[in-house]
Amino acid sequence: MSQKAVVILSSGGIDSTTAMAIVKNQGYEIISLSLDYGQRNRYELECSKKVAAFYKVKEHVIISLNLRQIGGSALTSEIEVPKNRSEVELNEDIPVTYVPARNLIFLSVAVALAEARKITNIFIGVNAVDFSGYPDCRPAFIQSFEATANLGTRCGVQGKEHIRIHTPLIHLSKRQIIEKGLELGVNFELTSSCYDPQSGGKPCGSCDSCLIRQKGFKELDKEDPCRSG
Amino acid sequence: MSQKAVVILSSGGIDSTTAMAIVKNQGYEIISLSLDYGQRNRYELECSKKVAAFYKVKEHVIISLNLRQIGGSALTSEIEVPKNRSEVELNEDIPVTYVPARNLIFLSVAVALAEARKITNIFIGVNAVDFSGYPDCRPAFIQSFEATANLGTRCGVQGKEHIRIHTPLIHLSKRQIIEKGLELGVNFELTSSCYDPQSGGKPCGSCDSCLIRQKGFKELDKEDPCRSG
Repeated sequence: MSQKAVVILSSGGIDSTTAMAIVKNQGYEIISLSLDYGQRNRYELECSKKVAAFYKVKEHVIISLNLRQIGGSALTSEIEVPKNRSEVELNEDIPVTYVPARNLIFLSVAVALAEARKITNIFIGVNAVDFSGYPDCRPAFIQSFEATANLGTRCGVQGKEHIRIHTPLIHLSKRQIIEKGLELGVNFELTSSCYDPQSGGKPCGSCDSCLIRQKGFKELDKEDPCRSG
Repeated sequence: MSQKAVVILSSGGIDSTTAMAIVKNQGYEIISLSLDYGQRNRYELECSKKVAAFYKVKEHVIISLNLRQIGGSALTSEIEVPKNRSEVELNEDIPVTYVPARNLIFLSVAVALAEARKITNIFIGVNAVDFSGYPDCRPAFIQSFEATANLGTRCGVQGKEHIRIHTPLIHLSKRQIIEKGLELGVNFELTSSCYDPQSGGKPCGSCDSCLIRQKGFKELDKEDPCRSG
């Protein structure tokens, strides 16, 4: 496999799709990875497939791992998704939509896929600005994960190149991410961000993720193509 | 949930079962976690269920995550399992039975389960003596993983107690592990170690894992109950 191939985590949302556009723009061959983890928003998996087709990825791997057996989050249990929270509330504490160890698990599966495909560069669209306070989106976690992955894999221990976890969006606001995506021609109509969509994937418009997305588009004075349908 | 509860990874093999006996002997309440990852040895999952019943665990969670979609190992693809390797060969390099990022993934899922159950102590029966040279069984990896888990989880960032990864067997040889298990009354008949068992779970007797197990019992001058049937 070419050294120019990368593995990228793809949720079908704004962030990972913009990260994929960045990777595509840099000329990498793409293997995208999505996790069917029993998430409340089933529609985002369909979005990840559309995004994979749009970017003509070499391979789109969807791994099932039912985190509903574990629970502990509004996204993977019957806990209600908070709605219409104020900006102050959005910046308070870690919300109930936090999924225990989600990015730890997702990145671990990405490392397995990368190692099996002889790839060392992994991309993830986390950001630590408009990010709901999730601990597994912060630079300190990502850096530590990269070190751990290199200690626990054959390629990390013996390979010529170490595993690298790339986070091109980590210091961008949602507004800046959308701006970057639009610059690169991202079709945001293909994406889904809602934690609790209605049938057909229609966004609820009031969960934290919808509110952060709306704010991003509003600040840019752009219309979200997912809201106009 | 009581602070005396732990999560333990259980493969149905000698090491994790001995680790479970140690935990049980210390009076902990046990939540065991097994991964159905598409492993060649399907029988080991049945063993993990028998072990869970034997130790009267509070909960035995079996999570499916098909690593055959990823491959890259003799345990998760059509790559042949090496047989009848010499002791010199057993100590050479990392063998094809290495599964990319396996313990990274397993520990990540264990962290998710522990966090959701409000548990901070996680046990894993890795050992870095008779261990096939797998990088994800070494102390350096485990220590780094623990730090990463505490950076990427709510309980690690905000909890009163940090996540701890316990490896009670890490410096023991297979002989010492079996000896410890026998002291604690482990019924090794319930366990399976073979990488490539015949129908009904009968061990092949010649893969690396069978050879290391045989050597352990032989050094103790004990009969392996799994070989006598």
